[in-house]
Amino acid sequence: MNVTSLLNELSDIGTNPSGGYNRLAWTHADASCREWFVSHARARGLDVETDRNGNLWAWLNPSAPGDALVIGSHLDSVPRGGAFDGPLGIASAFAALDALQDFVPSRPVAIAVFADEEGARFGLACAGSRLLTGAIEPDVFRALTDSDGVTTAEAMRRAGLAPEHLGRDDELLKRIGHFIELHVEQGHLPTSAGVDGLTTGSPLGLATEIWPHGRWRVDLVGQQNHAGTTRLGDRHDPMLDLGRLIVDVRDVAEEVGILATVGKVRVTPGAVNAIPSAATAWIDARGSDESRVRAAIARMGRDSTLESWTPSTPFDDRFASELASAVGGELPLLPSGAGHDAGILALAGIPTAMIIVRNPSGISHAPEEFAEDADCELGVAALATAIRHLTA
Amino acid sequence: MNVTSLLNELSDIGTNPSGGYNRLAWTHADASCREWFVSHARARGLDVETDRNGNLWAWLNPSAPGDALVIGSHLDSVPRGGAFDGPLGIASAFAALDALQDFVPSRPVAIAVFADEEGARFGLACAGSRLLTGAIEPDVFRALTDSDGVTTAEAMRRAGLAPEHLGRDDELLKRIGHFIELHVEQGHLPTSAGVDGLTTGSPLGLATEIWPHGRWRVDLVGQQNHAGTTRLGDRHDPMLDLGRLIVDVRDVAEEVGILATVGKVRVTPGAVNAIPSAATAWIDARGSDESRVRAAIARMGRDSTLESWTPSTPFDDRFASELASAVGGELPLLPSGAGHDAGILALAGIPTAMIIVRNPSGISHAPEEFAEDADCELGVAALATAIRHLTA
Repeated sequence: MNVTSLLNELSDIGTNPSGGYNRLAWTHADASCREWFVSHARARGLDVETDRNGNLWAWLNPSAPGDALVIGSHLDSVPRGGAFDGPLGIASAFAALDALQDFVPSRPVAIAVFADEEGARFGLACAGSRLLTGAIEPDVFRALTDSDGVTTAEAMRRAGLAPEHLGRDDELLKRIGHFIELHVEQGHLPTSAGVDGLTTGSPLGLATEIWPHGRWRVDLVGQQNHAGTTRLGDRHDPMLDLGRLIVDVRDVAEEVGILATVGKVRVTPGAVNAIPSAATAWIDARGSDESRVRAAIARMGRDSTLESWTPSTPFDDRFASELASAVGGELPLLPSGAGHDAGILALAGIPTAMIIVRNPSGISHAPEEFAEDADCELGVAALATAIRHLTA
Repeated sequence: MNVTSLLNELSDIGTNPSGGYNRLAWTHADASCREWFVSHARARGLDVETDRNGNLWAWLNPSAPGDALVIGSHLDSVPRGGAFDGPLGIASAFAALDALQDFVPSRPVAIAVFADEEGARFGLACAGSRLLTGAIEPDVFRALTDSDGVTTAEAMRRAGLAPEHLGRDDELLKRIGHFIELHVEQGHLPTSAGVDGLTTGSPLGLATEIWPHGRWRVDLVGQQNHAGTTRLGDRHDPMLDLGRLIVDVRDVAEEVGILATVGKVRVTPGAVNAIPSAATAWIDARGSDESRVRAAIARMGRDSTLESWTPSTPFDDRFASELASAVGGELPLLPSGAGHDAGILALAGIPTAMIIVRNPSGISHAPEEFAEDADCELGVAALATAIRHLTA
């Protein structure tokens, strides 16, 4: 099957009434996407297994000698997310196997679906790959909750998994020789070919690194009071502090030259006629340079709690060159501002590469996320060539 | 019974784990408060009725000639609200009747509990009194929804009411001769005795007017995108517009000399790693002068939607003087920044007064809302004297 047909099969799963997709981890929509994966893997005669961290694996020629070339990505989404972030990598992997027809690899090949990549439900991105590599303690992970107070453990149990078995999986890690993630372009970050992302140069690129990125929480406390009766000078209004923080975050990001975003806030109690008692903001900050990201947070001058931190993750130069020459030479190089399971695996020492497919809108994590069919086909061809070359 | 004992009976109803009370209209907690009212009314031999707008009435001597003196307030609260806003007026009315012992009024006396005064659930304050007086169209009201999408009509139906009968009730309005609401002080707005509210002068005061007040909604639209990949210059971030709006609202309020508050915001989708697609802020604005309130909103320079507007509502001078002399002379006069059912009834042409009981914290709509027992007793004594004087 071609990649467009494969993606079309997902187009009705988890649709959001206002556009885009809600496929948060371990929801019904996520389960439907996972079923789609299992059914396609079985139809191709692949051996399907769910690892103890909830990631799905489909093995081709698993008993061949040597370690595996794994092609992977994810199927979950952010709220109102796009159609390509995650599913493009999985659909392209199936399409690449189909394009290879009766080719028999000399080593195992697997397609991996990492669980809960977006972290949109429980606040921790790349949960499945972090658990697999031991980058997060299972006890810490099991205690995370969603906005309804449901723990990850409970959500996974409801999905038929056994959360008591979560954790680093050395046996599985040993089987992974190389990892490739194919992903839609996000934003128009400068590439080695131009300043406007892949809109200049080739429709495909190779990621050089994942920028260091972190999430900070700022808790602002005030004095709840009546909006109609409290003199301005008597107020301790955390909403006003929140407004100033949002403005400062942008100003500091511009001054220091990083990306910083407030995408989520919580205001208590959130009544029109009450000065709030508390407000919380989450700051997402990233950039090419770790020290500048940390300096920006310091410069914002608020007490903040670091909720997660991922250091700069360079991908394997040698593997990237091998991949580039396999797929026919020069590809523009670009950084990834977004975190990915590929980054988590690279941090665990697995030679890893990312193939990026041009996104003319530059928009991601939104319904406008897009890639042309022809560009997606080029991505599939690159994957197929890579598989043939690396497993011949 | 004394007023403190009466209030204590409510102290376990709708408690919020982080302090204060959640007694939103037509919830279980609200129903428990209403049951408490009915049971106390029946114990005193009062005739209890629920009008067709869900307000509760307890009549003493209803068949006496003439129109009634009604003492009323409400029992619902904002989220995490205080113990006094509303219940103090109702408990004080019962305590006043108890203090009068076997006094038989020459005209009917009623205690009224107005439904859904705070508007915290459906966004419209003083819903019960507005429906009673025809200040809102029943069709408009029935379509209002809470944050779960439940309509007022459905919520009232679940509470055993018949929302198809909502609307202006001329027969009931004709029975109301005078209306008094006793209420805890909110804020420390200047009084005729000093600038720091009732903390200077007498523990009781009389309200002169309710300030004009309105609610405006500002809808900010942006382009949802990935927080880690979208260059700052490519962003259309409604969260940033929200931050600037919050800061501007305070600045303009200070410049123009009104009270303006952003207490509620909504951000879509609200993910840490996504630039939002939309943000909404609600502005509550009030002041002694209607034109200044409107000028401030204009000066904020955003497209806004007026969700509700209540003009300046002066209380009846003559009735206030009569009440003051009944309770023994001079009381400090003060405005109310908060809206009240008393204001809605005054707008409908009913001679209306408000007795305000000192609040040392000045804080309202929060757990710190407070009145000393002794001050509450003075409020009860004033009510009892007023009833005796006005119905002798």
